[in-house]
Formats: sequence, structure tokens, C-alpha cells
Amino acid sequence: MKILVINCGSSSVKYQLIQMDGPEVLASGLVERIGEPEGAITHKKHPGQPDEWEIELTLRMDTHTAGLTKVVELLCDPKEGVISKASDIAAVGHRVLHGGEQLYKPSLVNEEVIKIIEDNIPLGPLHNPPNLQGILVAQKLFEGIPQVAIFDTAFHQTMPPEAFMYALPYDLYTDRKVRKYGFHGTSHKYVAAQTAKQLGKPLDELNAITVHLGNGSSMAAVKNGKCFDTTMGLTPLAGLVMGTRCGDVDPAIVSVAAEHYNLDFAQVDDLMNRQSGFKGVCGLNDMRDIHAAIAKGDKRAKLALNMFVHRIKLYLGGYYALLGRVDAVVFTAGIGENDSISRRLICSEMEHFGLEIDQERNDARSREARFISKDGSKTAILVIPTNEELEIANQTVEVLHAESLI
Amino acid sequence: MKILVINCGSSSVKYQLIQMDGPEVLASGLVERIGEPEGAITHKKHPGQPDEWEIELTLRMDTHTAGLTKVVELLCDPKEGVISKASDIAAVGHRVLHGGEQLYKPSLVNEEVIKIIEDNIPLGPLHNPPNLQGILVAQKLFEGIPQVAIFDTAFHQTMPPEAFMYALPYDLYTDRKVRKYGFHGTSHKYVAAQTAKQLGKPLDELNAITVHLGNGSSMAAVKNGKCFDTTMGLTPLAGLVMGTRCGDVDPAIVSVAAEHYNLDFAQVDDLMNRQSGFKGVCGLNDMRDIHAAIAKGDKRAKLALNMFVHRIKLYLGGYYALLGRVDAVVFTAGIGENDSISRRLICSEMEHFGLEIDQERNDARSREARFISKDGSKTAILVIPTNEELEIANQTVEVLHAESLI
Repeated sequence: MKILVINCGSSSVKYQLIQMDGPEVLASGLVERIGEPEGAITHKKHPGQPDEWEIELTLRMDTHTAGLTKVVELLCDPKEGVISKASDIAAVGHRVLHGGEQLYKPSLVNEEVIKIIEDNIPLGPLHNPPNLQGILVAQKLFEGIPQVAIFDTAFHQTMPPEAFMYALPYDLYTDRKVRKYGFHGTSHKYVAAQTAKQLGKPLDELNAITVHLGNGSSMAAVKNGKCFDTTMGLTPLAGLVMGTRCGDVDPAIVSVAAEHYNLDFAQVDDLMNRQSGFKGVCGLNDMRDIHAAIAKGDKRAKLALNMFVHRIKLYLGGYYALLGRVDAVVFTAGIGENDSISRRLICSEMEHFGLEIDQERNDARSREARFISKDGSKTAILVIPTNEELEIANQTVEVLHAESLI
Repeated sequence: MKILVINCGSSSVKYQLIQMDGPEVLASGLVERIGEPEGAITHKKHPGQPDEWEIELTLRMDTHTAGLTKVVELLCDPKEGVISKASDIAAVGHRVLHGGEQLYKPSLVNEEVIKIIEDNIPLGPLHNPPNLQGILVAQKLFEGIPQVAIFDTAFHQTMPPEAFMYALPYDLYTDRKVRKYGFHGTSHKYVAAQTAKQLGKPLDELNAITVHLGNGSSMAAVKNGKCFDTTMGLTPLAGLVMGTRCGDVDPAIVSVAAEHYNLDFAQVDDLMNRQSGFKGVCGLNDMRDIHAAIAKGDKRAKLALNMFVHRIKLYLGGYYALLGRVDAVVFTAGIGENDSISRRLICSEMEHFGLEIDQERNDARSREARFISKDGSKTAILVIPTNEELEIANQTVEVLHAESLI
């Protein structure tokens, strides 16, 4: 059975076609700059395999329809294609940011689901519209094939009210659904399940802190396999210091920054989302560039790294307090999987928390799930490569089963 | 030696006259509703002593000058006064909110100090103007007597940059001094010093988490006797859930709330400062009322309490992670000193942190500094009544010594 996973952004589409027996990625790719004069598609057949084949196309795509039509052509290409026709795909799984409180379970797309995604555009103004666009286009291109929506907030819906409520006038919650939703849910869920496997423990007995560090970063306190608290909030702006997002700040600063730069509300949101984080502190938003700058003596880059680490330690401790017992601290995503320096700094001087990192294991390069704690460490420390696409595909298959479509 | 301590608000003055040998509070009081048609003064001689004497006056006071003039009359009253003339006072110690980064050490007031307090009005728009007003009035009423400014941010100035910097565009720090300052510094400092005494430990070897829970609430991570991090930020809005302040929220919510209620920046700040916190969640802002409501089955009151506790546990754990070793967790201020229920909930299920509360000690009513942990608790838990006035008086005396004025 083959599942196509689609993640539609405002001008981009990420996709993977996964053969679920295996599982094996048959093809993956990225469509970029939809709507611009010159767009691009990077498409790989059998990525990461010995027979990997890659093509980069430069072409104008005015709409998501144009981009996805081209993707279908590539997938069905007589010579380098991996399927012969669109209907070889069993289902399409769509990453969707926000279903609010109404909808968070993986759902077979129907008119009601589409309406709920539309209704929750105010909660995900940047993501929900292109996510929806992706679904509508796929419905046409893959006519008669089930479409499944997987919500990025789903994993966090088990938080108790004391974790998800804000201490604001209560009608902001009842009338406007202002609460903590959390994001990267698919990643936290996948990583938590993999951690349970690694520890040889049933998922519903796992207490862990999952640390997703990428360009966007978030942490989750996982209690008995379920999310108990997370760092992102109503939007992905809250919590950790990120590439271009500020994370937690005194909310009174919003007005101060707006006044200082003469910005309106939308502009100050943009400032906090796109001009802040590492970029705001030191001008660089990629952790690899930050390490390079630090090596050259850049003090602001060092400050950005120290702030990043300080905030993560704060939440590690906080979640430890909330969980009572922590079986594992788990690093994932771009920085989490690849940056041994950040991992070392985060885990240093945390022996009182039962965290003892093994320097050699931490420094070893690997793409596999692995332990990086010392054998005697009370709490295990792991690196687990996230795989949101596979998780979306798995959940899509679950929906097909539940709906008796397979 | 007698020190008069003054805390000037926009329409109020709190004061205490302290005999430093002892120390002993000779008189204390509160001037309220300055500038309103009917103001009030509540004045006590020898408060808390067997011969306590209290008078309540209702009178119109158009200015702080009028209010403080009346206070001087009461202090010098031929029958019930505690001094014979204003010049019996050795110095006046003033609580001042914000000296920014320029000035945070206790300072003998001169023209430069006054200018710095003025310059930092943008950082303390509600407090710095009346604080300054109090100084100017006292300079006239106590001519020739040293005036000393004690800053509420002082204790927190030892935070490292990774704790006090925000991940915002760097010029907000350089041009506008946007950073974490922290507040309740006088209280955290006093309580930390008392904790060291209680533990029989030099202050510079003390690691503690001081938990100031009042109408405004904040916590401080104290490392080797100095502040390492604190929950309040640029303003007193950040951090814990408070009586009417929201504490930490996703900063993207500011725009959402403004749009929802059709507010401008100043109004949404006011909403977060005065209509949020416990009041926003359950309509009540006093913890005693919240407990009473919970007893009657009020679910929103219970939610407010749970949110308060959840956030404090999060920071307790976070500060434990940052500090490495914690000798004591210390409760102070209105809720911290008097609310055994909050203390019990905060410390419950924290045995993995070395916190074991003793139920009987926790429930005992007392106004003394005391241990409420079990004898075997790895980390001591204490209740220490704060005394910001005495701390201000002590620091005032230190300045007099340093300036060779005594």
C-alpha cells in the first residue's frame, strides 16, 4: 500500500510517497516558490538508497494545482516514475496545522472537516489556508482516493486545563478559543513512540521529555505516553528561543517594541516571528552558522547559543517537576539530531537531574535512533530522528482501517 | 537611629518609621486616595505591640505634599507621636521601582540620581513618577536629612545575560534597554538573607528558590546568595499567574486579544495587568476568596488555583535545573506566608526534587520564620515573613555608612 504525504505551505509543497510495507520512501520532494516568476521542484526517487535519482526542475507554477500536477507527472513518469497512475496511491495524508478544539483526531476529509479547517483559519492564519488548498487540489488530482487530515496539534490535546489555559479574561477562551494548543505534535508523538520501543517499555508507561529542536523548536512533557504540557502556545511563537522566533517574552514588551519601531499589531507579530530568535540576537538564524561564528569569537552568537540552552534547561527542569519521574530525555529534528554541541551544553551540569551524557556517544555521527547517556545515567538520553511523514502515513492508514476503507 | 521608609504610589504612600536598634517599628501607616475628594490615613503607633495605638483620619489631600505633611504631624504629635521633630529622623529610605541598567545600587539621592529615575520612567511608567514625587516632597519636609533610593530591581542585577536577555532584535536592548529586570528585589534579597541565617550558612554559599506570592508574585533562583534568574521581566507582568496579571502567555496573544476586544496597545496592556490572572479566570483576585469559592464548588476558582500551582511547579523545577543544588525553597509575602493550601499543593508530588513538606508544620499558624519541611527533607522548605521596609531601612543605613554620613 502506498501513501502520499503532503505538507502544503503558502508557496511550497513538501511531499513523500511511502510504500507502507517496509516502510520505504519511494519518492520525496519539495516544490518551491509557487506563484513566483520562477519556481522550482526538487524531486528524488528512492532517496537515501543506492539507486537514488534526483531531478531539479525550474519552472513557473502559478498555483498549487500546477505544482502538484507536475509532482504527479514526476511520480508517474514512464522512465523514472515510481507508480504508473495516480490511482495506485491508496490515500493522501495531509499535514494540517490547526483544527482548534473541534477537530484534532486524524480525520477522513469530508465537507465538515473542510469547514472546520476553514473555521480555524484565525488560529492558523499562515498555515491553514495553504493546508486547505493542498487538500482541495489533491481531491481533484486524486479523484476518488481518500484524503486524510493529520493535525499538528493532535498530540497535545491531552494536556490538562491547568497547562493549556491562559490567565486571561475567560471569554477569550469561550468566545475565541484562545488557549495553548502546541505544535510539532506529529513529531513529538512519533518520537515518544520510538522512545518507548528503545526503552522496551509500553508507550502508556513512558514518562519522557521530547525536545524537538529545528528552525522551529518545542518541547513536550510526556506522561504515560500522552502530552501533559508543551512549550508552544496558541501559536508556534511561544516557548523556546528559535531561529527567528523570540519564544517566551514579557507580554508587555509587545507594546514597547511596537512603539519603538512604530509598528501595528500585525507588524509586531511579524517582528517576533521573523526578525527575532537567534536572528534577532546575532543576525544568524542557522545553528551551524552560529557555531562557526562562535569559533571566530562572535560574542553575540555565543549569547544566542547560551540563551537557547538556558531556556531549554529551564523547561527540562520544569517538566521534570511536573512529571515526577522521567525515563528519558529525547532530542530530535535538525539541531536535536545533528548538533552535539547543543546537546552537550543542555545536558551539562544536570547530574542532579539524573542526566549523564556520554561524550563519545554524543559526538558519534549517526542517522539511527541511539542512546547518548552513560550506561549508569538514571534518566536515559536519546537521539531519535523524527519522521513526521512516516507518522502522518501511519495515521492515515489507521484512519483507512477505522473507516473500513481497506 | 531612626529611619523613615517611604513607598509612594500614584495616589498612596506607605510608610514605616523604624528604630534601628532593635529593630523596632515605631510607627507605620498608609495614606490613600491622594487627589480624590476624600482621602484617608491609617496610622499606627507601635504596631503589633501591646501598646499599639491606631488612628484613622478622613481628609482631603490634593497632593503627596499634603499627605506626607500630615504624616509628619502624626509622627511628631505631642501626645501620641514617636519623635519630637522631623530632624529626629536620620534618613529617609525610598522604594523606587526602576533605575534601569544605569542605577540599581542603593544610592544617596542627588541631582544625578533624580535624573536617572526620571530617565527610566519609560521602564516604570506607573511607579517611577510617584516614587520620584515622594523623594521631592521628602526633600522639602525633611530638609537637610539624607534621602536614599532603594531600587526594586537591584537584587536581580546579578543575572547572567542568558537569563536577562530576550531573543528580540538586539537594538531593542541597546537603544531601548529592553531586558529582564525583575522586581520584588528587596523582598527576595531580605528573604534570601534570612534563609541563610535559618540554615546557619553563609549567604554566599546559599542556593535557594525564593517564592514571593502576594497580589503580585515572583520567584527568584538564588545562586551563592545572588540572583541567577527571576520570573518577572521588563515589567512586573511576566512569569507567574497573579491576582490580576496574566504572567507568561504566548506573545502572539497580545494581538489576538487586542483585535477581539478592539483595544489599542495601552488598553491591551491594561487588560493583561488588571483584568487577567485569577480575576480573568474566575472573577476573584484574592486567594482567600478563591479558596472560599472552591469550597462552594466553583470550578473556575479551582482552575485558577490549579494554574497558579502548575506555573509555580514549572519554575521550581526550572530553577532547580539551573541551580544544580537547592538548599531551600522559601515562601514569603501574603499568600506565601499565610496560605497553607497553596504551599501544600505546590510541594506535593515533589519528593523526586527532594521536597517533603510536613503537614503539621505547614498548617501551623505563625508569624515567625519557620521550617515546614520534614526533618529528613533533602531540600528545606521554609516560610519567612518578608519585611521590605526593614530591608530598605537596613540598606539606607548601609548607604549612610558608605557615604560617611554616620
